Amino acid sequence: MKTFEKRFKVETLSDTIELSGPEVQHMRVLRLKNGDEVHLFDGSGWEARARIEEMDTFTATLVVLEKFQNDLELPKPITLALALLKGDKLADVVRACTELGVSRFQLLKTQYADVPDLGDNKLVRLKRIAEEASKQSRRAVVPEVLSPITLKQLPSVTKGFVAHPHTQSTLLEHLTWDSEVWFATGPEGGFSAAEIELLQHKNFLPITLGKRILRAETAPIALLGALASTGV
Amino acid sequence: MKTFEKRFKVETLSDTIELSGPEVQHMRVLRLKNGDEVHLFDGSGWEARARIEEMDTFTATLVVLEKFQNDLELPKPITLALALLKGDKLADVVRACTELGVSRFQLLKTQYADVPDLGDNKLVRLKRIAEEASKQSRRAVVPEVLSPITLKQLPSVTKGFVAHPHTQSTLLEHLTWDSEVWFATGPEGGFSAAEIELLQHKNFLPITLGKRILRAETAPIALLGALASTGV
Repeated sequence: MKTFEKRFKVETLSDTIELSGPEVQHMRVLRLKNGDEVHLFDGSGWEARARIEEMDTFTATLVVLEKFQNDLELPKPITLALALLKGDKLADVVRACTELGVSRFQLLKTQYADVPDLGDNKLVRLKRIAEEASKQSRRAVVPEVLSPITLKQLPSVTKGFVAHPHTQSTLLEHLTWDSEVWFATGPEGGFSAAEIELLQHKNFLPITLGKRILRAETAPIALLGALASTGV
Repeated sequence: MKTFEKRFKVETLSDTIELSGPEVQHMRVLRLKNGDEVHLFDGSGWEARARIEEMDTFTATLVVLEKFQNDLELPKPITLALALLKGDKLADVVRACTELGVSRFQLLKTQYADVPDLGDNKLVRLKRIAEEASKQSRRAVVPEVLSPITLKQLPSVTKGFVAHPHTQSTLLEHLTWDSEVWFATGPEGGFSAAEIELLQHKNFLPITLGKRILRAETAPIALLGALASTGV
């Protein structure tokens, strides 16, 4: 059994924990039984080793054996402001970028997007994908996925970067870890000139991702890959 | 019509070019007619603007107007030695890494791979995906996709990097562009200790992709993203 399969998310890491519903079903699927050890995480950075004390069809009582802070997070939280994309592309980006350490996804409505908005069901699905990817990559933080807003509604940030063709500036020459970091990536058609200007007003610095044209779903993974390659 | 849709691959960029088969069908689908301009590329780095002189149902004659070397390639060729992966994951990696500038894919049979080998049909499909992705990202080079070999059959390289967890070395502190570069990425279960040792004997330096566990299909995209983020 792979380690991540024995990881379960809980609301709060108290000394004794009662679980019910899908987490218990999942334990039964994995054929876990009384006395077995599992890993718990609370989605905010804390983890624990715990032992199953009692389990029946619907509920399980666990005792926390050891609590520790998971150190797999990036030095500061990263928010990815991500333009809406068609089909399963958003899911692919959320999955890969959760593995790569993103703390929060802020979906964006943009001028050249192929999709104007996102249904509630799709938002719920993206949240579930973020949770699954967080488990699989053994992170203790489950990234938030925030409903789409317009670029005008996006706050001014302390430090932001927007992937933009025909730019010379590079991420790593401008990145420092003294505050949280925002990234913005556009839709298939890219950001419009007006949108890039608006993002610059909000402290997003245009940066290069090389000379070739990247698909909208490749750009954010490449950007986060640049961070990962520094070993953080 | 998007520019990349009017890009056609030819065998050789001679002054006058006769096309037939699927490329002509594609021209007809795009409703191109005599006198229209298209872009041609030969898959080795050369491109041309060309004009359709005569077109019938099955053949087209084009005259090259201007020939130029496409400058979207990385400073030296990159080969990605990529472990076989299940399902559509190989296709996703080939697509994204072609956009990110890989020149050649060397598929690998590895110890912990979920799939032992690759059928001919799948290899042909991967080659087609590399060609399409090359077109879309406006590259003039179509990456080769080479049939799977074992790690023992892999040549010793001048400069190689292998993505490996629990490593401190980073790509960008060791990368120079004085020779062609190889990357190696493992299957879902990772490379075995013996495989990492073998790769090191063949001049592949283990490098980090951050502290989190990445899926096998995320790692190569992240690695190439690190290169792209330097603006090359």
